[in-house]
Amino acid sequence: MKTAVFYGVEDLRIEECATPEASANKILIKIDACAICTWEQRVYTGVKKVEYPFIGGHEIAAEIVDLGSEIDQKNWKIGDKVVFGTNLACGNCEFCKSGEEQSCQDFNHSKHLEGLPHKGMGGLSEYMLVEPKHLFHYYNVTPEEAAFTEPLSCVVHSCETADIHYGDLVVVIGCGIMGQLHVALSVKSGATVVACDLNEERLQLAKENGARYVINSGTQNLKDEVARISHGLGANVVFDTTPIASVVEDSVSIVGNTGRVILYSSFYPDEPVGFSPDQLHKGSYSIRGTANSNSRDFIRASKMISERTIDMRPFISEVVTFDDVEKGFKSAIKGDKYRVVVKF
Amino acid sequence: MKTAVFYGVEDLRIEECATPEASANKILIKIDACAICTWEQRVYTGVKKVEYPFIGGHEIAAEIVDLGSEIDQKNWKIGDKVVFGTNLACGNCEFCKSGEEQSCQDFNHSKHLEGLPHKGMGGLSEYMLVEPKHLFHYYNVTPEEAAFTEPLSCVVHSCETADIHYGDLVVVIGCGIMGQLHVALSVKSGATVVACDLNEERLQLAKENGARYVINSGTQNLKDEVARISHGLGANVVFDTTPIASVVEDSVSIVGNTGRVILYSSFYPDEPVGFSPDQLHKGSYSIRGTANSNSRDFIRASKMISERTIDMRPFISEVVTFDDVEKGFKSAIKGDKYRVVVKF
Amino acid sequence: MKTAVFYGVEDLRIEECATPEASANKILIKIDACAICTWEQRVYTGVKKVEYPFIGGHEIAAEIVDLGSEIDQKNWKIGDKVVFGTNLACGNCEFCKSGEEQSCQDFNHSKHLEGLPHKGMGGLSEYMLVEPKHLFHYYNVTPEEAAFTEPLSCVVHSCETADIHYGDLVVVIGCGIMGQLHVALSVKSGATVVACDLNEERLQLAKENGARYVINSGTQNLKDEVARISHGLGANVVFDTTPIASVVEDSVSIVGNTGRVILYSSFYPDEPVGFSPDQLHKGSYSIRGTANSNSRDFIRASKMISERTIDMRPFISEVVTFDDVEKGFKSAIKGDKYRVVVKF
Amino acid sequence: MKTAVFYGVEDLRIEECATPEASANKILIKIDACAICTWEQRVYTGVKKVEYPFIGGHEIAAEIVDLGSEIDQKNWKIGDKVVFGTNLACGNCEFCKSGEEQSCQDFNHSKHLEGLPHKGMGGLSEYMLVEPKHLFHYYNVTPEEAAFTEPLSCVVHSCETADIHYGDLVVVIGCGIMGQLHVALSVKSGATVVACDLNEERLQLAKENGARYVINSGTQNLKDEVARISHGLGANVVFDTTPIASVVEDSVSIVGNTGRVILYSSFYPDEPVGFSPDQLHKGSYSIRGTANSNSRDFIRASKMISERTIDMRPFISEVVTFDDVEKGFKSAIKGDKYRVVVKF
Repeated sequence: MKTAVFYGVEDLRIEECATPEASANKILIKIDACAICTWEQRVYTGVKKVEYPFIGGHEIAAEIVDLGSEIDQKNWKIGDKVVFGTNLACGNCEFCKSGEEQSCQDFNHSKHLEGLPHKGMGGLSEYMLVEPKHLFHYYNVTPEEAAFTEPLSCVVHSCETADIHYGDLVVVIGCGIMGQLHVALSVKSGATVVACDLNEERLQLAKENGARYVINSGTQNLKDEVARISHGLGANVVFDTTPIASVVEDSVSIVGNTGRVILYSSFYPDEPVGFSPDQLHKGSYSIRGTANSNSRDFIRASKMISERTIDMRPFISEVVTFDDVEKGFKSAIKGDKYRVVVKF
Repeated sequence: MKTAVFYGVEDLRIEECATPEASANKILIKIDACAICTWEQRVYTGVKKVEYPFIGGHEIAAEIVDLGSEIDQKNWKIGDKVVFGTNLACGNCEFCKSGEEQSCQDFNHSKHLEGLPHKGMGGLSEYMLVEPKHLFHYYNVTPEEAAFTEPLSCVVHSCETADIHYGDLVVVIGCGIMGQLHVALSVKSGATVVACDLNEERLQLAKENGARYVINSGTQNLKDEVARISHGLGANVVFDTTPIASVVEDSVSIVGNTGRVILYSSFYPDEPVGFSPDQLHKGSYSIRGTANSNSRDFIRASKMISERTIDMRPFISEVVTFDDVEKGFKSAIKGDKYRVVVKF
Repeated sequence: MKTAVFYGVEDLRIEECATPEASANKILIKIDACAICTWEQRVYTGVKKVEYPFIGGHEIAAEIVDLGSEIDQKNWKIGDKVVFGTNLACGNCEFCKSGEEQSCQDFNHSKHLEGLPHKGMGGLSEYMLVEPKHLFHYYNVTPEEAAFTEPLSCVVHSCETADIHYGDLVVVIGCGIMGQLHVALSVKSGATVVACDLNEERLQLAKENGARYVINSGTQNLKDEVARISHGLGANVVFDTTPIASVVEDSVSIVGNTGRVILYSSFYPDEPVGFSPDQLHKGSYSIRGTANSNSRDFIRASKMISERTIDMRPFISEVVTFDDVEKGFKSAIKGDKYRVVVKF
Repeated sequence: MKTAVFYGVEDLRIEECATPEASANKILIKIDACAICTWEQRVYTGVKKVEYPFIGGHEIAAEIVDLGSEIDQKNWKIGDKVVFGTNLACGNCEFCKSGEEQSCQDFNHSKHLEGLPHKGMGGLSEYMLVEPKHLFHYYNVTPEEAAFTEPLSCVVHSCETADIHYGDLVVVIGCGIMGQLHVALSVKSGATVVACDLNEERLQLAKENGARYVINSGTQNLKDEVARISHGLGANVVFDTTPIASVVEDSVSIVGNTGRVILYSSFYPDEPVGFSPDQLHKGSYSIRGTANSNSRDFIRASKMISERTIDMRPFISEVVTFDDVEKGFKSAIKGDKYRVVVKF
């Protein structure tokens, strides 16, 4: 089979390796589609450091092609359409065993997965050998849409962390694809959504995704606008989907009493953020982190995509063949697209 | 009637004023007991600034002595034993109307209450004129115990904000009375409680209140001890009950993945606190403020005190008569006691 | 002023009475719109017994026209647009004081409200005298839309009782207006919604409100269809919005493990329902009641209507003038409409 | 090794079989203690039907004695003290994958576990071959105490289903061991606990476990007593821990508005229960099933036992050696004891 391997900054090569075989409690899947996440883009550009060689790809839709002998054939059949994930967690720690794999003590993007020639998440390969606990069925939709299960599952986790109530005022800061998914899911939480970005085109898209208000923070005063829209109460929820530490302080400045500021993104660089403990105490608001997703989130995302509760098609900016994977990366890092999806 | 009025730093005078009369939708209560909170102690010593003259006292147990004509006599009877509170919130803002009076937009310690000669919370008076929405019945116990309803209600709010689960490791930093109440209520939440202070005597009391482990942060390394006790997982909940901003950073340093750091106290002075946004994101923990309490918290606290689910008697360090109120203050500010209670 | 008074079955008369005056802690509102709920329709037709004379009307949008002297003028101004509700609860019991007015121990549809000549909820009058705690601001939309705040608030309470998660399969049984509002709010909860009714026209409307699947229980087998749609798992939530006791058993028959059956409607007649305690135990599902709404629900509904998170306009079937109120009742009880709204 | 096998009603035989060997992703554990649950007692007496031969035992404390080659040696070491459970769920269905193994679609008490000669839960054997996902560490306490992790985990699940708040009035009906554990855990939830049984001795024990009130339903009127204790409000939570269907109706009769009736036990026989849907609707209370436990519950129970948050020692009525296992069963079914524990 073929797999796409990072050998250095902007050095991505397709190479041949042995196709793994199903046995015991393992299932062989053939990858149908793998979306190119910002994480892999950062590996490609060198912002994110990994040990080379490294196989990327973790937004994966696939088909079952073979079953190990111990696999329960009532649940898993050859030809089943599935998404794959949650396998970067250790599976052994208290968080994993409590169903909180997203907060695993030993989360590892660089495992050496059985059946692959190198370390890495492995989705940019034709086949993967996986355990059934990391597979989730999907229905009705295309593999390109299903490949969004992993990113949507992370947004499910984020929105549940935010504890959104009907009628809440939710501000989403940053309108890249993860911001847009936050907009779309917050709308599907009964909230009034305010999208904030510097880019008018992205704000227009946020409106199409259901944002009721948009704020261009280049030309408008964020705090004044939120005060106006909220009748002086501040936001109930602020999602910071940017990697910029100083935006955290902006986020805290617009949250209202009892509100929740959610830090969704990794920070590059991770500079310290300051806040007033007395104001946080008196306003009884909170600052909450969210990262990754767990099996329950995967199931919820997979059901929402399968039933097109949120339609993923507008988020597919470009589809490339596996042979054109590097072209896909070059296109993705331009930053003017949502997702580029590799179709196998 | 008599009321105790602050006229300046360490200048507390008992003065005569007219006793108010019940009418319309108001109830006249005779104060039975009023505990001297740290808040009033700070007014007495001048750390907390108020506009003089000012009548303190907000941890109040009383008896109904007269009913206005509009009062529902099925619910309220002369002779009923009650606690009084939640009246500092405005009652009109969205937070108040949603049952979140503790986070009122316009919380005010210095209202001029009807029936009193000066501004202030008013509990250091022989009588008060109140609305039934701010009264809550209590049963079985003494007024001195019932006077703890207000502080316990704040701890109820704090512990609910912390979302304690069975078996959680809860660290309480600071073992003054509010810390001790956090210890006691966390024990009654099914948690394993670790108490932390510099004072051995207080740590001993925390043990009596149910703490399973104690850490003397003067002689032991907080972070190492929490790592040891938690088998390397960190705390699920950290309550910071101190007014010292730098302790927030200690609190954040010991919380585990998915954990919650709760800022319970006001901060004197309110210095900025720094944290790493990337660590908060990756560890998916949170920093949450809590302050004051609402009617629901009052009801829960009142039921717990009435049934001695938590026994308040050990927290009554001294009882003084109203005539000796200043003696009570002088005793309270020594800092070696839990509560000094004024008995009327 | 004029008020519309029930004097018997199908005997509704408009009569003159004195206009009340604002004083003390009361606000005078001029009714702009009042929708005709099924409750009042049942009074009109005699299905619901009340003591005559009786003034109906509880889905109320209004404008502030005068303020009593004790009213906080920062929060309330003449000309403010408001909805009115939650005043049927006693305000004194533990449920009311805990913010659970919907479950008041002494809920009373037949209070004699101050300023009105007879008992009853009073909204079919030109003016009402009210306390600020029962008023909630609305913005942007027409009074006819705002009059839906009360019914939507009840659906908010119901959907929160159901604890809907992203991707859940929600079945709504009965597609009258309250069923349709359940469909619309469940869609805004991230659920996949299945609507069930005997009437094709109503099912078509449910689709327009966002239902992904419809089941005509006259021609299709409910249980088979739910099994098919849910891949054999059963529904996560079933809302029974009908007044028919036997439908509860249908509802229980389609709920999956850990699912929730919600009894939203009153039952006419209230016949006993049977269930297997062992199946409920083993499947760990639940049967939950919901009724009425509280202040928090009112705020959430009012915000959703004000921001058109759910657009109420399609639910306004007919608008009549106050003089034509009886014509409105005759039209409403035909049963082929959503809401008939009385415009003042 | 030896294993104890049911061959018929009151026909329990110890037999020799091959000791399994650790390999691949399996761990070999040596059983230290296994408690005799009511479930196995019902198998022994024939009330619960199983297919013979059958190996019982599912309340298990053990020690790791060998590790398969794929096992993560950082997490699992020879000599580790562990409890074993949650393996009766299928692991593949949506409930299992969402961390709700207790509500598995395909829960099976009669699996044929690898390494054992017959079907059954297997804990009455000297060794078991298990997957690490079903193992949980415990600390500090004896194996006899740790064997209570499985039953306590079920009570954890039940109490979380009940959503107990501070100060709630919780009534536990039935004071066998599972009732007593409900008493103890409700006390550790900040509730006021009322225990109800026909047996005075059991009621006395409930008091020792923290019940504030007891009701002998043989000599006292349950409904009157609950009304008196709750000041007319009814119970917030009622746990029915009996297998008697008619007790469900008693439970519903004492629950207050917004309250929760929890059906904890299996029902023998499973007779239909009737209720008024209109009362459930108007009182907005609920009837909720709970059964078994999941990994998160196991972790919580294991931590509570390890830290003696609830001390299990009073619940160990008798300890027998494995050779005396049948003596243990004969003693257990007398019904005058909590747990008889088999020590290996």
